[in-house]
Amino acid sequence: MQTLHVDLGERSYPIYIGSGLLGRADLLTPHIVGRQVAIVTNETVAPLYLSQLEAALQGYELTSVVLPDGEAFKNWETLQLIFDGLLGARHDRRTTVVALGGGVIGDMAGFAAACYQRGVNFIQIPTTLLSQVDSSVGGKTGINHPLGKNMVGAFYQPQAVLIDTSTLNTLPARELSAGLAEVIKYGLICDEPFLAWLEGHMQALLDLDSQALTAAIARSCAAKARVVSADERESGIRATLNLGHTFGHAIETEQGYGVWLHGEAVAAGTVMALEMSHRLGWISASERDRAVRLFLAAGLPVVPPAEMSANDFLQHMAVDKKVLDGQLRLVLLRQLGEAVVTADFAPEILNATLNADYAAQLERLVN
Amino acid sequence: MQTLHVDLGERSYPIYIGSGLLGRADLLTPHIVGRQVAIVTNETVAPLYLSQLEAALQGYELTSVVLPDGEAFKNWETLQLIFDGLLGARHDRRTTVVALGGGVIGDMAGFAAACYQRGVNFIQIPTTLLSQVDSSVGGKTGINHPLGKNMVGAFYQPQAVLIDTSTLNTLPARELSAGLAEVIKYGLICDEPFLAWLEGHMQALLDLDSQALTAAIARSCAAKARVVSADERESGIRATLNLGHTFGHAIETEQGYGVWLHGEAVAAGTVMALEMSHRLGWISASERDRAVRLFLAAGLPVVPPAEMSANDFLQHMAVDKKVLDGQLRLVLLRQLGEAVVTADFAPEILNATLNADYAAQLERLVN
Repeated sequence: MQTLHVDLGERSYPIYIGSGLLGRADLLTPHIVGRQVAIVTNETVAPLYLSQLEAALQGYELTSVVLPDGEAFKNWETLQLIFDGLLGARHDRRTTVVALGGGVIGDMAGFAAACYQRGVNFIQIPTTLLSQVDSSVGGKTGINHPLGKNMVGAFYQPQAVLIDTSTLNTLPARELSAGLAEVIKYGLICDEPFLAWLEGHMQALLDLDSQALTAAIARSCAAKARVVSADERESGIRATLNLGHTFGHAIETEQGYGVWLHGEAVAAGTVMALEMSHRLGWISASERDRAVRLFLAAGLPVVPPAEMSANDFLQHMAVDKKVLDGQLRLVLLRQLGEAVVTADFAPEILNATLNADYAAQLERLVN
Repeated sequence: MQTLHVDLGERSYPIYIGSGLLGRADLLTPHIVGRQVAIVTNETVAPLYLSQLEAALQGYELTSVVLPDGEAFKNWETLQLIFDGLLGARHDRRTTVVALGGGVIGDMAGFAAACYQRGVNFIQIPTTLLSQVDSSVGGKTGINHPLGKNMVGAFYQPQAVLIDTSTLNTLPARELSAGLAEVIKYGLICDEPFLAWLEGHMQALLDLDSQALTAAIARSCAAKARVVSADERESGIRATLNLGHTFGHAIETEQGYGVWLHGEAVAAGTVMALEMSHRLGWISASERDRAVRLFLAAGLPVVPPAEMSANDFLQHMAVDKKVLDGQLRLVLLRQLGEAVVTADFAPEILNATLNADYAAQLERLVN
């Protein structure tokens, strides 16, 4: 087991990473203050892991809330089911909410913990690669609104994050790939040597080699913890974690939540950010192609939906949370391993990026 | 104009109190960071004061969201209308949300500000006595759940509170009385000399004498600011502000939100807390009666609904936010001017309090 620390003063917390941690009561109980625990999970994860977690928490007054599975349910109606479950079982403000599932469960359970009686304790147990390396760390919680993703939420830090790599054994291959999109992202924004490591270990990761997984997750979480510690509420550097996300969110929103997986949209969105960084003269064509190849090796899409026009993108991007005083800001790469947030680009470069022929580029790359 | 300060470190803010402040752009603009402002108000307040406020804010990109009026609408569906308005007009995270209205508007607009894009700036302009002396100060925001009042919300401090006493000229008499319930509360919990002042000035307050109003509001806000500064997140002394509220919330919930005004329920609930404090031997019958007379003089109910049984009360009180690890805690009076939060009472005393004949007591008092 590896233990990392997210350093946020009085809101600091540990991240435990290893195989078989789910049943480890000794890791959970130090982070539970009262006698009530509410586990929030979904219909897919519950049959696989809920009983194991419930066993580890026996002795507590336990309520389990099982939600429908998927990004399409990351909305108020589903959130309300958590409040119904907590109030129905008379959970008080010393309750601890435990999220058992992927990013959607973590975001919703975390937001519910932030709002229930104006805030109760919260533990993250992410069970997908994407949530293990990204959403479970850093305290971003929330739900979607029909007009925009994650538009309603809170910054709310957990008491602890417990990452059991053995939960990845039951993860569909498509979701494993989606998680790798965020892993690759850390290399691109702040850890160039990690890209070479990933090029060498991509097959091991896809084969669920537990040593490779633990190494990749720990390196990703460490990168995220560094950034979050420096900028908890995203007034600056934290926004670089959103490389590819502004383009990616537009894809997700346009296609309807859940049609593209978040990581898939981030992969295609990052390819667009790479393209734009190249058109700005910041990275070379071969650096761009190196990154695109890594996404391809991870089994990820590198071409945005053919039917999406430049205008479709612009419309969704106008409500991005990085828009300030009407000005669109994008995360781009100064070089591989160095991301910047900038509004300083000519509109023609953005337009050319939105209109680029990514399918043809892919064609060239694989032939 | 009087200016008070709520001292909360980097979340400190001023409270401006005086007549005719609503049009004072010079008080508002220092607290607005971006170029977008969203005013949240309701159908009753909008025709009276919205255009005046909009005029003071001309030059900003302005969106006004007008909600239906009443506690019955303090729910997610109505909150959603705020998010719809903000997203529809593409408000970004440098938006400032301004609450123009009573406690329901302040609580909902504040919660919307806390959640919109994970938190935007917020200014309170309370237009009822109740919200001016209570809910606009201290950062409690939220909405009701069918199973309990204010069960979903956030601690979220405004950038400033602007109290224009002239808005009370259009306040219905019943709501003025409801506000006086919270004013009297401050005397009872922490300012015994204020009770004598109120006994001497009750008629002036009911007559909307602006000097008396300003004095009473400033003294109430100062009391609240002291308590909130000492305990922002209600881990201790702040709970004393809820004198009468546990009994009162039970009345509100049982009767259906909005049937009893919040201040009316607090008055009757406080009479129950006085009764219980008396039965515990902490205050005398004449001290209890002195406080009851003050509520009567303010035009407030001092008898809980005849049809509510002890069991009705207990059922609602079991989900009170002051319940910890299953133990009900109540705010009671050690003496007039000194409140305590305690779980240390015999169940029989609570039962006797719930079964006391308040109607007969009132009969004795007025004859």
